[in-house]
Amino acid sequence: MIETPYLLFLGDAPDSLAAKVAQGIRDWRPENAIGQFRMEGCKADLKLPDLDLVDAKARGAKTLVVGVANRGGVISPAWKKVLVAALEEGFDLASGLHNLLRNEPDLAAVAEATGRTLHDVRIPTVAYPIATGKKRSGKRCLAVGTDCSVGKMYTALAMDREMKARGLKSSFRATGQTGILITGEGVPLDAVIADFMAGAVEWLTPDNDDDHWDMIEGQGSLFHVSYSGVTMALVHGGQPDALVLSHEPTRPHMRGLPDYQLPSLEDLRDVALTLARVANPKAQVVGISVNTAAMGEDEALSCLEGIEKRMGLPTVDPFRQGAGRLVDALDAI
Amino acid sequence: MIETPYLLFLGDAPDSLAAKVAQGIRDWRPENAIGQFRMEGCKADLKLPDLDLVDAKARGAKTLVVGVANRGGVISPAWKKVLVAALEEGFDLASGLHNLLRNEPDLAAVAEATGRTLHDVRIPTVAYPIATGKKRSGKRCLAVGTDCSVGKMYTALAMDREMKARGLKSSFRATGQTGILITGEGVPLDAVIADFMAGAVEWLTPDNDDDHWDMIEGQGSLFHVSYSGVTMALVHGGQPDALVLSHEPTRPHMRGLPDYQLPSLEDLRDVALTLARVANPKAQVVGISVNTAAMGEDEALSCLEGIEKRMGLPTVDPFRQGAGRLVDALDAI
Repeated sequence: MIETPYLLFLGDAPDSLAAKVAQGIRDWRPENAIGQFRMEGCKADLKLPDLDLVDAKARGAKTLVVGVANRGGVISPAWKKVLVAALEEGFDLASGLHNLLRNEPDLAAVAEATGRTLHDVRIPTVAYPIATGKKRSGKRCLAVGTDCSVGKMYTALAMDREMKARGLKSSFRATGQTGILITGEGVPLDAVIADFMAGAVEWLTPDNDDDHWDMIEGQGSLFHVSYSGVTMALVHGGQPDALVLSHEPTRPHMRGLPDYQLPSLEDLRDVALTLARVANPKAQVVGISVNTAAMGEDEALSCLEGIEKRMGLPTVDPFRQGAGRLVDALDAI
Repeated sequence: MIETPYLLFLGDAPDSLAAKVAQGIRDWRPENAIGQFRMEGCKADLKLPDLDLVDAKARGAKTLVVGVANRGGVISPAWKKVLVAALEEGFDLASGLHNLLRNEPDLAAVAEATGRTLHDVRIPTVAYPIATGKKRSGKRCLAVGTDCSVGKMYTALAMDREMKARGLKSSFRATGQTGILITGEGVPLDAVIADFMAGAVEWLTPDNDDDHWDMIEGQGSLFHVSYSGVTMALVHGGQPDALVLSHEPTRPHMRGLPDYQLPSLEDLRDVALTLARVANPKAQVVGISVNTAAMGEDEALSCLEGIEKRMGLPTVDPFRQGAGRLVDALDAI
C-alpha cells in the first residue's frame, strides 16, 4: 500500500501524453494529488499547484509518484537529483517504470539510510495464494474487451465514481500499473507467476458487504492471443456477477497482431459469459462501454445507438456520457 | 537442456508412487535411463540395473535425476551425501522438487567448485518473449481436459510414441516438471510470469517441417478456476491444429474444488474449439482420451463405447488400448 497523498513528479515531460499516469491520478483521485513537481523544460501541466519538496511535505504529501514515462523507461540523471532529495526530505517514492527504482544503487542506498520505501508497482510484493474458487460475499463487476486498450480501466473507474456519487458502496480494484498508482494499491497481474494469477485476483477482491461492488480493472482480452491467459484469470478469479463488454469500433486489427481481426461483440458476449459462469453461475452481461474517442459527436452517438439496438444492452461511452446507465444496470441484478 | 542419459536417484522412496517421476522417465524414455540408485530402505524398484556413481559414470550417465518426491519436497540430509558425491563424480543434478537444489548452500558450492550444473526444472531459465500469434509451419496437437490430472501428459506421450513407431515426425513438448525431466527440456509453464505464458508456448513449439507434429503437454483445464489462465495460454500460444479431449469419468468434482462439477465433454469441446480457433481457424477436435484406471475392463470398454457413440469421435484409453486411433485421426486433417 502506497501512502497518500502524493506529490506528482512530471520531470521534464516533453508533452502531456508523457504525463498520462499523473493525469490519471489527478482525474480519478484528485484528493490524492497535493501538487505537481515540474523540472525545467517540462511541457506537461496538470493545473495543480507547483510545489517544491519542502512545501509539498508541509502540506502533507507522503509519496513522490513518478507520473511520467520517458523513452525506454529509463530513470535519467536529471531526475535522480530530485528523487534523492525527495527521499532525504522524507518522501517515499513510487513508480511504474520498467526500470525499477530498487535497481538504482543510489536510490536504494539513500532509501535504506533514510528508512523510506521504494514502490515499484510492476513487481508483486505479496505471496499470492492458489485460487480456491470459493464463493465470496459482496458483488463484483469486470469489464472484458474485444481487444487490449479499449477503455476497460476507464470504464471501471467511471463506474466506481458514479457509484460513490450515488452513495453506493464501491471499490475500484487495480490490476495494472496505472491503476495501482491511482489508488495506491492493487495487483500487478501481468507480472504474477502463472499458477497464482487467479489467486491474486481472489486476494484482491475478498469477501465484502452484500451490497458492496468491486469494480475490477480488466486486462488484455480473451481474444488477444498474447495476453488471454491473464484475462482468463480475471474472469475465473474475479467470479464477476456483472460483465461489461468494452469495445473500440475503429480499430483495424487486434493491438499488436496485424493478422488478427477483432471479435464481434456477440462473440465476446458468448465466450465471456460461458467462461464467467464456470466461477459464478449467476454472471450476466449488463452493458457495453464503447470508446468513441476517434469519432465526432454525431458519428459517436449513432454508433452507440446502433450497438445498443443490435445487442439489446445499455451502451455508452463513459467518457462522453458518464457511466450512469451502466451503474443503473448493476442495480437491476 | 538437461544432458542425457540419466542415473535415476530413488533415494529412500517409501513406495513406488513416491518414485513416479523416475517411473515416467523409465516408461517413456528408457534410452535415457541407464540405471537406478537406491539407498538403504528404498521400497521402489524400476527393474533397472542398480548402479553406484562410478559404474553409472562409466556407462555414460551424465545427470543424476532426483526421481523421487518425499513429504514436503525437502532435500533430506541422507540424500545430500549422495548428491554431493554425484557432483564430485562429474554428474549434473536435475530435480523437480519445490525445494530447489540451488537454494542448498552445500550443493551450490560444490556445483560451483566442480563446474557442474544444477537443473531445477520448476524454474524458468529462459527470458521468454511476448507471444506474436504469427502462424507457424508444422502441426500441433494439444490435449485439453475436463479437469486437471486426467491424463493429458500420458495422452501426448502415448501419441508421440505411436507417431515415432510409425516412422512419422513427432516431438513431445513438455510444459510441466515431470515432462521436462522425461525429455530433458521444456517450459515449466506454471512458473512463468503471466505476460510471457503464451510466448513461452510459442517458443517451445517453433516453425517445423510441414509434416511434423508437436505433441504439446496440456496443463490445468479451461474449466478449473485455479489454473485456467495457464490452459488458455496453451490454447492460444500453441495454436493447435488438433485438440484431444481428456476426461476421467469417475471424478466426483473438480480436483481441489469440492463446489465445482466437471463440465460435460460437449461443453469442453465447444469452449476449447471456440478459443482455439481464435489462434488457428482450422483447429479441430480429433478424438477423446479417457482415463479408465478406476474401472474394470468391461466397465471401461462400455464407458468408452458410450462416449464414442455420444460424441461421434474416436474414444480410447491410451493406457489400455494405445493411442493408435488418435494418431489415425491426426492423419485425417
